[in-house]
Amino acid sequence: MGSIILKDRVLSKNDELALENRAVFDKRKVWCLNLISSPGAGKTTLIECTVDRLREKLSIGVLVGDLDTENDARRIAAHGVAVRQIITGGSCHLNAKTVGEFLKHFDLESLDVMIIENVGNLVCPTSYHLGEHDRVCLISAPEGNDKPLKYPCAIHTADLLLLTKIDLAPYTDFNPETVRNSALRIKNSLPVIQLSCKSGEGLDRWIEWFENRARSFRDSKEVPS
Amino acid sequence: MGSIILKDRVLSKNDELALENRAVFDKRKVWCLNLISSPGAGKTTLIECTVDRLREKLSIGVLVGDLDTENDARRIAAHGVAVRQIITGGSCHLNAKTVGEFLKHFDLESLDVMIIENVGNLVCPTSYHLGEHDRVCLISAPEGNDKPLKYPCAIHTADLLLLTKIDLAPYTDFNPETVRNSALRIKNSLPVIQLSCKSGEGLDRWIEWFENRARSFRDSKEVPS
Repeated sequence: MGSIILKDRVLSKNDELALENRAVFDKRKVWCLNLISSPGAGKTTLIECTVDRLREKLSIGVLVGDLDTENDARRIAAHGVAVRQIITGGSCHLNAKTVGEFLKHFDLESLDVMIIENVGNLVCPTSYHLGEHDRVCLISAPEGNDKPLKYPCAIHTADLLLLTKIDLAPYTDFNPETVRNSALRIKNSLPVIQLSCKSGEGLDRWIEWFENRARSFRDSKEVPS
Repeated sequence: MGSIILKDRVLSKNDELALENRAVFDKRKVWCLNLISSPGAGKTTLIECTVDRLREKLSIGVLVGDLDTENDARRIAAHGVAVRQIITGGSCHLNAKTVGEFLKHFDLESLDVMIIENVGNLVCPTSYHLGEHDRVCLISAPEGNDKPLKYPCAIHTADLLLLTKIDLAPYTDFNPETVRNSALRIKNSLPVIQLSCKSGEGLDRWIEWFENRARSFRDSKEVPS
């Protein structure tokens, strides 16, 4: 019995540091979201797109994780927002400690939103809370219909599922309805938006979700559920 | 000085078990290859395609790793080959111990080839040797041109790079030559084949590589380099 209580009370070191990050975000009223997907599902392009649409309305910072190269940070910086690249040097996910260290490089007082682009990996990043308020999982059309059931943790821990690169669906056997239904079998409250940064389909819905979350957070003490 | 010698001599537990698996394959003259890629890069489809082309010439067994579901094993079994599904229950890669346990379910004496389809993950599986003779990395066209430089371990540890779903390249900014060149910057001896199981482009070259490796292994005591 004692050990059960103990387990309830003791957070992992990463979870402890994630809570510290969260406190930093809360204090500055910065809404933080964590983007998780396979390599090449379109996280960086989505950030570029989002920044372009919202730069005049919201002050956005971006923290990008990759095993190697600063390419993504360079791409995003060209859109005129504050960005830092974390090179994990082989590690398969970001952790709360590293995120906390990199947050010091931002002027958080001036930000409304912090987007964290995790390492491209649909497995390991799902186990590491970074202190984010919302987690967005991306599955791209070319990856196929079976991904939610094969990667249930990515779905289970997400607050929003984006079906990206939907412009490629006609050239594949991707069926958004099938994917949506299997995702809802894992988490029946999960909102799902299909979009394409190339064709623009679905972008209005994504931007609306994003802006609502950011503004609600800024205008209240807690993130709306 | 003593500790350096010790480090040289002591293999990790996984490496030890990988060598045991390798000995099992060598004894039965079964050529083993390990397929590594992001989720949805087309590993299962490639196996289906390969089995269909070579079933009359080579006896092939398949070991499939996934976090969840037996879908892939069912798909492959429909092509008339021996297949077993390893459900990792959350683990992000296959390890040599589990592979060794599952090998007992195959009649290895009757096989020429064992294909291991790893968990869809371009990071963690690259660190775990399973006893395979060759490792094949797949990068699909929709994943984009930057993948080799961002996931250098996947390239560095591969014996062959396949650029898959090349039929989708015209609808993306994928440039096979750019990807090939950046892969060669990491490993300049790496053979690269671009292919599409849908259009059939490049399949002859893949099948030729596969058949040559399998036959050379069967006809000799060592895999040709």
